[in-house]
Amino acid sequence: MAQNKIGKQTLHFPSTPIITSWASVVGPMEGKGPLGEKYDLVLTDTLAGEKTWEKAEQKMMQFSIELALEKRNLLPKDLDFYLAGDLLNQITCANFTARFLNTPFLGLYGACSTFAEGLCMAGVLLEGGFAEKVGVSASSHHDTAEKQFRTPTELGDQRPMTAQWTVTGSASIIIEKTGTGIILTHATIGKIIDLGNSNAQDLGSAMAPAAFDTLKTHFEDLGRNENDYDLIVTGDLGLLGHGILKELLKEKGISPDRFNDCGIMVYSPDQDTHCGGSGCGCSGVVLTAHLIERLLSGYYHRILFIGTGALLSPLTSLQGETIPCIAHAVVLESRGE
Amino acid sequence: MAQNKIGKQTLHFPSTPIITSWASVVGPMEGKGPLGEKYDLVLTDTLAGEKTWEKAEQKMMQFSIELALEKRNLLPKDLDFYLAGDLLNQITCANFTARFLNTPFLGLYGACSTFAEGLCMAGVLLEGGFAEKVGVSASSHHDTAEKQFRTPTELGDQRPMTAQWTVTGSASIIIEKTGTGIILTHATIGKIIDLGNSNAQDLGSAMAPAAFDTLKTHFEDLGRNENDYDLIVTGDLGLLGHGILKELLKEKGISPDRFNDCGIMVYSPDQDTHCGGSGCGCSGVVLTAHLIERLLSGYYHRILFIGTGALLSPLTSLQGETIPCIAHAVVLESRGE
Repeated sequence: MAQNKIGKQTLHFPSTPIITSWASVVGPMEGKGPLGEKYDLVLTDTLAGEKTWEKAEQKMMQFSIELALEKRNLLPKDLDFYLAGDLLNQITCANFTARFLNTPFLGLYGACSTFAEGLCMAGVLLEGGFAEKVGVSASSHHDTAEKQFRTPTELGDQRPMTAQWTVTGSASIIIEKTGTGIILTHATIGKIIDLGNSNAQDLGSAMAPAAFDTLKTHFEDLGRNENDYDLIVTGDLGLLGHGILKELLKEKGISPDRFNDCGIMVYSPDQDTHCGGSGCGCSGVVLTAHLIERLLSGYYHRILFIGTGALLSPLTSLQGETIPCIAHAVVLESRGE
Repeated sequence: MAQNKIGKQTLHFPSTPIITSWASVVGPMEGKGPLGEKYDLVLTDTLAGEKTWEKAEQKMMQFSIELALEKRNLLPKDLDFYLAGDLLNQITCANFTARFLNTPFLGLYGACSTFAEGLCMAGVLLEGGFAEKVGVSASSHHDTAEKQFRTPTELGDQRPMTAQWTVTGSASIIIEKTGTGIILTHATIGKIIDLGNSNAQDLGSAMAPAAFDTLKTHFEDLGRNENDYDLIVTGDLGLLGHGILKELLKEKGISPDRFNDCGIMVYSPDQDTHCGGSGCGCSGVVLTAHLIERLLSGYYHRILFIGTGALLSPLTSLQGETIPCIAHAVVLESRGE
C-alpha cells in the first residue's frame, strides 16, 4: 500500500507542510472589489508600466513571489523548488518568472486549477522529504485571457450573461516543512470530467461537475462530509457554475450552506462582470488575500479549497471538441486546536 | 534537512521506483529511421486516420499509454495517477488522453523536457508513498509543432540548416513501487537558463547551456563524473546543440565520449532533417524503444537521461523576448549488479 494515499485520489500529508508566507497582486478593477483593501499590491493600470498585457501579467507574478519571499525574509535561492503556471500558451509568465528567480523549476498546466495543483505538488515534495521550502505561483490577466481564448478586448465584443471576467491578478505562497502559518493536511487530485459543454463563454457550467466529482471523492476517501469544514470554496465556478454545483449537492443530500466560490467573492455585483470572476489568479488572490487571513484569525479552522480548471483550447474547440474540466482540492487548517 | 534531497537540485529515490512497462508510437518517417524496428507501433501516415494532425497526435499518446498498460496487463483504473504533457497550447493531447483514461491527472508543461519532468514527478509520488503505480506520457508531432511554433508545413517554407525536425511520436511508461524493470535512482531538477538566443529555428543552441548547467549541478550534487555513466544522453539538442554541449564539456575538462543525443539517434543522416530530431516525443521514443532495452539487456548499467526543453512562445518572441530553456535529468539503472 502507498502509505500516504487515502482511498482513490487523496494524498495525506502527516508532517503537515506549512504555508508560511503569501502575497497577492491585482489589477485596478480587483482593487475596487470587496477584497480591495486586503491585497498586497493593487496596480494602477492593467499594463503595470509595460508595453503589453502579457508582460504585465508576468510582472504581476514576479511581484507576488518577490513579496511572498520578502515577507518571510527569504531570497529566491532559499527555495528548494519553484512550481508555477498560468493560462498563457507555453505558461510564459511562469517560465519568465522562474528565469528571474533562478531556482529549480517545475512548470504546471491545469488551467484555472493550477494554483491548487501547485499546492498539491508542493505538499508532495515537502512530505516526501525532497524539500524544505517550496514556492508556488499562478496568474491570470483579463486582457491576455480574452485575447487568447476568446476575442481581443479591443474588439469590444458583447459578453453574454453566462460569461465570467478573468481576474487580473497573481498569487504566490511559500510552503515549508517547519514554521508558523496555515497547515496543509490533505489533497485530492481530480480526474478529467467533460459532460459535453463547448461554450467558451460559460465555463462555470462546464466546471461544476468536475468540482462535484472531486468533492464527492474527497468525502468518500476521508469519510468526511460538509460539516467537517467551516468553508468549502471552489476556485472560479462563478454565479452560474456555483448554482449548478448547489443543485448537484442538493440531489445528493449535501447541504450547500457552507459553500462559496472565489469567482463570486472577488467582485461585487455592481461591477457588472455578469457571472463573476475566473482565472488562475481568481482563486489564488482570494485564498492569499482573504481566506488564509480568516484561518489565521481563527474565524475558520478548516477549509476545503477546490481549484477548478476548464482546459479550454481555442484550437480543439474549432475542431469540434468539448471542454475537458478538472478540479484539485486541498485541505487547509489553522494550526491551533 | 530534506532527507531525500542531495546538494542543490537533486532528488534521491532510495526505494528505487521501477519502470515496469513502456511503449512508443511514431509516425512513418520515424519508422524509417535507425530505430524503426524497435517502436511498438509505426503509423502509416501522419494523420492516423483522423481529420487533423492535432487529433492524430492525441491518438498517438492514447495508443502509447494503452500499449504500456496492456504490456503490463493493467487497466487505466490501476494507475494511481497519470502525469502528461505535450507541446500544444493548453497541452490538449494530455488533457484529452486523461479524459479517456479517467484517472487522477496532473498536467505538466516543460516543452521538450516534459517526459523527463514526468519521470521526476512520478519518482517523487512513488518515493513519497503517495502511489504504487504512475503513468507518464509525452508527445509531439511535426506538423502540429511547425504550425504552432513556426509556419504551417503547407506553406513549404525552406528550413534553415540549423533547424531540427520535430519527432512525430509519443512515449508512455508505467513506474511502480515494486516489480521488475529499470530503476530510477535520482533526478536533478533544472533551472531556467537563457543566454539570449531568440531563433526558433535553432533551439539546439538555445538548450545546450541548460543541459550543461543541469549536468554540472548533477555531478556536483552527487559527487559523480562522466565515468559513472555508461551513457549520458540529452533529449533533443540535435547536431548543432550537441556540438555546443561538447565544447562546453571540453572547456570544463569533461570527456564527451559517452555523450549522445536522442535528436541525433532518432533519424539517419540521409533523412535530410538538417540538425536532427526534437520535440517531447523525441527523447520519449528513443528512451522507451531503445535505451531501456539496452539497460535491460545489460549493454548499459547506468545512464543519465537529460530532457531538454526550449520554452519557446511565438507570442513572447514577437514581443522581443529570448527563449528560456530548461533541462531535467534522471538516473536510470538496470537492476542487476
